[in-house]
Amino acid sequence: MPKLWDETIEAHRNAVREATLRTTAALVAEHGLASVTMSRIAKETGIGRATLYKYFPDVESILVAWHDQQVGGHLQRLAAARDRAGTPAEKLAEVLRTYAVTTHERPHDTEFAALVHRGGHMAGAEQRLRELVGDLLADAARDGAVRGDVPPEELAAFCLHALGAAGGLPSRDAVERLVTVTLDAVRASG
Amino acid sequence: MPKLWDETIEAHRNAVREATLRTTAALVAEHGLASVTMSRIAKETGIGRATLYKYFPDVESILVAWHDQQVGGHLQRLAAARDRAGTPAEKLAEVLRTYAVTTHERPHDTEFAALVHRGGHMAGAEQRLRELVGDLLADAARDGAVRGDVPPEELAAFCLHALGAAGGLPSRDAVERLVTVTLDAVRASG
Repeated sequence: MPKLWDETIEAHRNAVREATLRTTAALVAEHGLASVTMSRIAKETGIGRATLYKYFPDVESILVAWHDQQVGGHLQRLAAARDRAGTPAEKLAEVLRTYAVTTHERPHDTEFAALVHRGGHMAGAEQRLRELVGDLLADAARDGAVRGDVPPEELAAFCLHALGAAGGLPSRDAVERLVTVTLDAVRASG
Repeated sequence: MPKLWDETIEAHRNAVREATLRTTAALVAEHGLASVTMSRIAKETGIGRATLYKYFPDVESILVAWHDQQVGGHLQRLAAARDRAGTPAEKLAEVLRTYAVTTHERPHDTEFAALVHRGGHMAGAEQRLRELVGDLLADAARDGAVRGDVPPEELAAFCLHALGAAGGLPSRDAVERLVTVTLDAVRASG
C-alpha cells in the first residue's frame, strides 16, 4: 500500500513535470522568451503558481530541463540509427543522415540557443554526440572505409560542424547532398 | 580654412570612435559583458561620459560597431587571400585556409556572440562571406576543379560550417587537417 501510493505520487509528479516542459517550450516558441513568465506557465499548464515553484525555481531552469530531454531524445535516435545499420561505414552514414535531418527540421532560435548553452550546459550532450560519431569513425577507419590520416575525433568535429549547415538549407534534397559531401570528405581515398 | 577645420574635427571624431571601440572590446574581453558600463568605458577611454553618449547610445551599440569593424577586416583579409592566389582552385584553398586560421585564433565567447548576432545583425556580413566563397567555388567548378553535382551556394554553406570546427581544435596542425578534409569534400572526383 505505501509502495503503490509512492508510485502514484511519482507518476503524478512526472506528469506535472512533463506538462510543464511541454507548455513552456510551446509558449517560448510562440511568444518569445521575454514574454514568458512563471505565472503564465502555471496558468497554461493548469497548475497553481506555488506548485510550479515546487518543481522549478525559474523559467530558465524549465528550459534547461526541456532542452536536456530534447538532447536525450536526439541521442537516442542517433543510437537507434547506428544500431539498425550493418557495417561501420553504413552505421556512420545512417547516423550522419539522421543528425542532418534532425538539424534541418529543428526550429532555430539564436536567443534560445544562447540561453540553454550558457554556462556550459551543452558541454555534456555535445561531448556524448562527439563520442558517438568519433567511435563510428574509428570503427570505419579500422575497416578501411574512412581515411586514416586525420584522428577520428577531429573528423567527428568536422562532420558535426559541416552538418550544422542543414539548419539553413532550403530542402530535404539539399540536406541529402550535404550528407553526401560530408561522407565523401571522410571516406578513404582509393 | 573651413575645410581644414572640418577635416580636423572629422579626424578627431574618428580617433575618439576608434579609441572607444578598442577600449570597450578590451573591457568586455577582460571583465565580461555584465560588468561593463558606459561610465567605465568613458573613464577608460579618457573622455567624458556626456561625450561618449554623443557617439553611442549604449554598450550594445558600441559592441555592434566594434564587431562590424572586425568582420570588415576579416572580409578584407579573405579578399586579399583570394587576390594573391593564382587559379580558382588555389584561390579557394587560400581563402578557406585563411578563414579557418582566423576562426581558430579568434576568442570564442558565446555570450558576446549571442549579443552581436541578435536581431540579424550578422546577416549582412555572413551573406557577403557566403557569396565570396560561393563565387570562388563556382569559378573552380567551371575550371573542373570542384564538383558540379552540388550547387556552389550549398558547397559554400558546407565549407563555412565545416571550418567553424577550427574554433575548438587544439593545434594549428589540426586546423591544416581540417582544411584538407574540407577541400577534399568539394574537389571534383576523378
